Parts: sequence; C-alpha cells; structure tokens
Amino acid sequence: MTANRQILIHSLPEEKLSEANYRMTETAAPEPGAGQVLCRTLAIAITAGTRAGLQGSASYAGAPKTGIVMNGATVSRVANSRHDAFREGDLVLCSGGWQDYSVHEAGQLTRVEPGVDPAHYLGALGTNGLTAYFGMLEVGQPRSGETVLVSAAAGSVGHLAGQIARIQGCRVVGVAGADDKCRALVSELRFDEAVNYRSPGYRTEFKAACPKGVDVYFDNTGGDILGTALRGMNVGGRIACCGVVSQYDTSHPEPGPRGVPGLLINKRVRMQGFLVFDFLPRYDAARRQLRAWMDSGDLIAWQDEYQGLQRAPAAFVDLLAGGNRGTRVVRVAD
Amino acid sequence: MTANRQILIHSLPEEKLSEANYRMTETAAPEPGAGQVLCRTLAIAITAGTRAGLQGSASYAGAPKTGIVMNGATVSRVANSRHDAFREGDLVLCSGGWQDYSVHEAGQLTRVEPGVDPAHYLGALGTNGLTAYFGMLEVGQPRSGETVLVSAAAGSVGHLAGQIARIQGCRVVGVAGADDKCRALVSELRFDEAVNYRSPGYRTEFKAACPKGVDVYFDNTGGDILGTALRGMNVGGRIACCGVVSQYDTSHPEPGPRGVPGLLINKRVRMQGFLVFDFLPRYDAARRQLRAWMDSGDLIAWQDEYQGLQRAPAAFVDLLAGGNRGTRVVRVAD
Repeated sequence: MTANRQILIHSLPEEKLSEANYRMTETAAPEPGAGQVLCRTLAIAITAGTRAGLQGSASYAGAPKTGIVMNGATVSRVANSRHDAFREGDLVLCSGGWQDYSVHEAGQLTRVEPGVDPAHYLGALGTNGLTAYFGMLEVGQPRSGETVLVSAAAGSVGHLAGQIARIQGCRVVGVAGADDKCRALVSELRFDEAVNYRSPGYRTEFKAACPKGVDVYFDNTGGDILGTALRGMNVGGRIACCGVVSQYDTSHPEPGPRGVPGLLINKRVRMQGFLVFDFLPRYDAARRQLRAWMDSGDLIAWQDEYQGLQRAPAAFVDLLAGGNRGTRVVRVAD
Repeated sequence: MTANRQILIHSLPEEKLSEANYRMTETAAPEPGAGQVLCRTLAIAITAGTRAGLQGSASYAGAPKTGIVMNGATVSRVANSRHDAFREGDLVLCSGGWQDYSVHEAGQLTRVEPGVDPAHYLGALGTNGLTAYFGMLEVGQPRSGETVLVSAAAGSVGHLAGQIARIQGCRVVGVAGADDKCRALVSELRFDEAVNYRSPGYRTEFKAACPKGVDVYFDNTGGDILGTALRGMNVGGRIACCGVVSQYDTSHPEPGPRGVPGLLINKRVRMQGFLVFDFLPRYDAARRQLRAWMDSGDLIAWQDEYQGLQRAPAAFVDLLAGGNRGTRVVRVAD
C-alpha cells in the first residue's frame, strides 16, 4: 500500500486566508479502475483564482466545501495505467490537487511534450499562458503601436500577457505592487514601463507612463487599479477582465469602480470578462505558439518555486499577499 | 427686429436640477451670415443625457458653463437662408437650443422628410431612435429567441430599444419606475413583461420575468438596476451601456455595481459603452428602417409634449424625476 499525503480544506477563511485553513492527512493511494490512470504528483500550480472557490459567494469554481482535498493543476507522472493511451512514466498535466497521488479518467489528462521543464505546463504552457494568450489576443485585441496596460503584471498571468502584447508591437506598461518587481519587468521582460500601485504618487506615475492613454487594459485585479485605469482609457479602448485578485482574499468584496458605466459610455469602452476554458478547442495551437516564443527567447516564463507538499498552504498565503513573481509552483517529487 | 426668447443656464445644480437653475431672457434674433441659415424653433427635444453636461465631472458634453443658452436638439423652420441648399419654410433638424431662433451653417442641418410629424425627428427618427437602433443592434446584438432586458424602458430611448428587440424575435422585458408605465409597455408596445423597479419585491419580480436569464441588457440607468441585471446575465451575455440616468441628477455619482468585474468574468459578459455619434455615416439608412417600422405599425413612437418655450425647464425637471413616457418634446411654435 502506497501512502498518499493530502492537504484538505479544514475551514473556510473568514477574512484573509491563512495556513490554519488547511490540514494535512494521510491515506492510501487510490487504485485506478478500468480506463483510469494513477498519477504521482510532481509539481502543483498555486493560482490566485482558486481563492475565489473558498468564498461564500458564487464563483465559476462552485460553492466552497471543507474536508476535501484542495484543488490545483499538477504535473504528474503516470504510476499505474489501466488505459492503453498511457504508460507508466508518462508525464501528464492534470487536476491532481494538493496530494501525492490522484486517479483520473484518461480523457482528462493532457500529455506533456518533451524538451522543456514539465513544470512550464503549470505556467507559460498551462492555464496561465493560455489565459494570457487568449485574453490578450482575443479579448484585448491589441494593435501594433497601441498602449497596453497590465495589472498584477509580475503575476503568473500578467507577466506573460504583457510580453505577448510586446510581441504584437505594443507599448507595454505593467502595474505591480513592489519596486523590485517593477524593475524586473522592465529589465528582464522588456516592459516599456512599470509602476508600483503602492506608491503615494501612483496616479501621477501611471499617467506619466501612459502619455498617450491606454488602448487595452488587461485587468487581473479589479478594485482601485481598475478604477484608475478606467479614467485613463482612450476612446474605443478594450478592457479584458481576467481576474479580481484584489477581491479574492476577503469575504466582503468592494463595490465596483466609479465610472461604470459612465466612463464606458463617454469613452466607448468595451469591457469583457472571459474564462480560458471557453477556448479549449484552440489550446493545442496556442501552446505551439507559446512554446515557439519561449524557444526564440521572445517570451520569458518566470517560475517561482516552493519545495515540498507541506509548503503548499504557505505558498498560497504568500501568493495572495503578492509574494510571487511569475508562476508559483510547489515541487512535490522529482 | 425679431425678438428671440432664450432660456439660459443661470446656475449649475448642486444636487437635483430645479427650474431655478434657468432664467429666460430676450434678445434680437441673430442675422445669418453668408452660407448660414436662420431657423425658427418649432419643437425642442428634452433629453436626460444633457443633464450630464451640467455636472462638474467631465462628460462627452464637455465642461459646464453658466450664462449660455441651454442646449437641445430642435425641429425648426428655415426663416432666412443665405445658402442655396435651403429655402424659407424648409423643415430641418438642428441643435437650436432652448430659444426661438438660432443660426447654423448649412452643413449642420438635417432635412426633415415629409409625411410624418416633424417632431418625430426629435424622437424615433432622431437621436433617440438612432441610439436605440445602433445600441440594440450593433452593441447588444440580440438573436431571435433571446431574452432582452431594457431599463428606463418607458423612456425616450428605452421604449424604442425594446420594440427593436421585439422586432428581432426576442423576448423583451422592460424595467420602469411606475406601474402605469409597465402596463402601457405591455399593452401598447407589446413588451412581453415589464417590472417596476420601485416595487418592494423587485428582485423577485425581475427573476420571474426572466426565467431563462438575460442575454442582452440595454442599460439606460446604471446604479442598482444595473447591479441586479448583472446578477441575472447569462453566460456570453452582452450589456449595451447607453446612459446612466440614475446618476445624472446628482453631483455625487454612486460607486459602480458590485460584481464588476467579478461577474463579468464568471459569466463572460461583454459590457460596452457607446455614443450614437460614432455611427453618423449610417444615420440615413437607419432612419429609413425606423421609418419603415413606424409605417408598418411595428414601431410605435411615444411622444410626450409640453406646450411653450417657458415650460422647458419644468419639462426637464419632470423628465429627470421619471415623469415622461417616450420622447419629451416642448412645442414652441406651429
């Protein structure tokens, strides 16, 4: 019998999420049934969006529950296959959750291509990269020469979204919550400018960084950053609503920004929410493009790692406080 | 010398607009210069959107001023023409403002076609009708069988927008502020349902009127009605942001609705502001379609009239309090 460590949702957060909202347990690894595959977790993606699933309010993740394994995308190695399409040792992307082993129907697994650190399938080649890709290109629709603003720009999706806009020939301005992140966005990822929203002079600095206004705003935050961005939008601008990280780690979301809908009208702005899952039929083609940009050096994928399953709650709490740079990954096994 | 009565903006409203914010004066009618046309005002359109121009905050109408003639679209008769394209007695649509006479460059005049009460050029065949037409069809993009919600549904734009959606084969639900308006929307304009947002059971009644959710919301109000509508949107829904009448008659606009951007993301909703002026090159074709629908009886244009220039301030104050049904017009001369 193989032991399976699991991290369960112990309680729902009242205000900010803490490590005490989780507990570790140990059980026997499950047995795959006919057509199923047992997967050994190698690495777990830690993503802000899963915080919404712990809120009382409805989210696309459904109603929150306690006593279940915390959800999360994983890169895993096939440990036991009862389906012809997979063999022991194959690397796959799956929704393994915060545990050592998980069982899946073969149809739920995505094969990880060789030649790249498989953990990139939790980042630039996974949901983060696909979200940045479809959100920027299909929802934001930037045109060469336009100014593109990205919030949570050093985050898992934001750092990729900004680079994708830069590849389209846009002037790219990032918003982040720390000066060192801002510097790295410019020096490492070739953003044109980056502004710290925690700076007392944020609004002035934001305007200075966008002298021609904002044509596309890729919004990962909502809240005040969205409000400021709205006032800077150009006529005909587009806002791709990707996430509301400013609102996840609370049970009392703020009201929406002033200027909705008034400014949307005055500036003829289109504001559109999206979920990457709607683009599922086009994932393969998008992954090929993202991989090509990585191989050519146009797209740099930041990975930000914690070591050990037991560190997953700490990695998540820190992420929600803005501690990550790029995709946060918890390495569970080699 | 011909006398020209004018109604001036005497002071800017602090909170709600009142008749005391206006004063009447009398001056000599202006003389048209070469290429210009002197127009006698026959009727003035009273529209909620012009209230935004009296707010301190920026609007598409520009910064507010006092001591100037209140602006407004008019149907006028040419009294003296110094341009070959117009002759005395011609009927035109222009931005005459709240006064008996106004002078215009010939290129700023739109000819009023015969065979219909010219005041319809202030309503169904004017900016209201064009706004309803382009906002519903181009921004809302309703498809047959979908549920379309319209706020301020008995208003100048709303009563037309709802009928245009009904002509597309949609189930149309109106929101209005009085039971008699709601009844008239159903009985006279053939809306499928109409709900009074002032009813204590509004949210329940709203849900009952939209059992399949809302696919397109034509928003004339913003505020709480927008917030409730947002929660009722279907996946892939569209919100055409046309006006914020709930926010015009105040100097302290409310914050935006909760759920922006969170609900936009969960439901993949597109929210888009528009101004009818952006569709200027297509006005003629749209007017022909609107006129055809009027002639066939598919589109009923409600007109709501006050008599006499001096009544314009009262007509506007009452409009902002929701007193109108359809397009409010002040008749100035025959």
